Amino acid sequence: MNAKKVYMVLAYPNKEGFCYAAFESLKKGLEAAGHEIRISDLYQENFNPVLVFNENKLRRNLQHDPEVQAYREAILWAEHLVFVFPIWWSGMPAILKGFIDRVFAKGFAYEYAGSSKMTGLLKNKTAWIVNMQDAPGIVRFLPFIIHDYGWVLKKQILRSCGFKKVQHFSIFSMLSSTPEKRSQWLKKLYGLGRKL
Amino acid sequence: MNAKKVYMVLAYPNKEGFCYAAFESLKKGLEAAGHEIRISDLYQENFNPVLVFNENKLRRNLQHDPEVQAYREAILWAEHLVFVFPIWWSGMPAILKGFIDRVFAKGFAYEYAGSSKMTGLLKNKTAWIVNMQDAPGIVRFLPFIIHDYGWVLKKQILRSCGFKKVQHFSIFSMLSSTPEKRSQWLKKLYGLGRKL
Repeated sequence: MNAKKVYMVLAYPNKEGFCYAAFESLKKGLEAAGHEIRISDLYQENFNPVLVFNENKLRRNLQHDPEVQAYREAILWAEHLVFVFPIWWSGMPAILKGFIDRVFAKGFAYEYAGSSKMTGLLKNKTAWIVNMQDAPGIVRFLPFIIHDYGWVLKKQILRSCGFKKVQHFSIFSMLSSTPEKRSQWLKKLYGLGRKL
Repeated sequence: MNAKKVYMVLAYPNKEGFCYAAFESLKKGLEAAGHEIRISDLYQENFNPVLVFNENKLRRNLQHDPEVQAYREAILWAEHLVFVFPIWWSGMPAILKGFIDRVFAKGFAYEYAGSSKMTGLLKNKTAWIVNMQDAPGIVRFLPFIIHDYGWVLKKQILRSCGFKKVQHFSIFSMLSSTPEKRSQWLKKLYGLGRKL
């Protein structure tokens, strides 16, 4: 048994919805496996996703913004991050996009080496991205013409920031799913949590 | 002279920054050409990008949400939309992602025909997407491995919602740009506005 520090980030508004149940199942699996867990339920916490910089709030000082410091501490504390969210319009809900915009500032998540080459500062961490969407699974097999669906967070954000391994789990065709199918998915997520 | 109804949406916080100047140049060009313009400066208006639905605020009723009705009226009114925003983390700033999440609800922007086939409801409109980014231009020539950078808004949102033509204008390598280069870009944007 190798207990890990796990930071779970949820971006979903409806406590009665499937995404919330998915988050709960995964959390129970992780707990059953004995991991230490911190949680940010962004909707519950009324997270403000709007990144502001201007002549009074300088862009170069965003890395020290005290409003999001607790989120940065949780990321630094964690060995493993878990992002649970539905795909809306091919990508992250705004509340999660703004979490990235605000928390993953230059100087915290990355630096520039030279004029435009990014160097990730969040080394030796792993992550899981857990998505659900109405779209059918074919969107993931056509990444050269259908964009994102978790790809950006995995490859262009977390990997660019130094994460050493990011795994992506997707549930498709939510719109036409049966209660039995949903129940199976929840069991699988519990099992996934147990296996970390 | 064929005056058009143009709805401009800006998602940028800093009045001293280049993106704001780009928006202004484009607007002046459109004005000089005699078009009728409405503007939503999302930061200026303190737009709340967080889409909420739950047991009290039903998902199926989002299309009637009075909080965003004025934005829907502007979209229906317009013949041509203009989105001006910087690329942050490969995509839209959260405030604009949430504009899409909240305003482009089912029943307003699209319907489902059958179980998962989208039918756009915003027919016969055109749009421009104007982006600027620190990344170099190569990101646009590798769409099979580098995702988004405006692609999602163009192809997977606006085109899916029925827009008949969407043009995408991108300014790259902002980080290393000179004042002369920026000044040229602003002139080009003015010229673009004049040509609509």
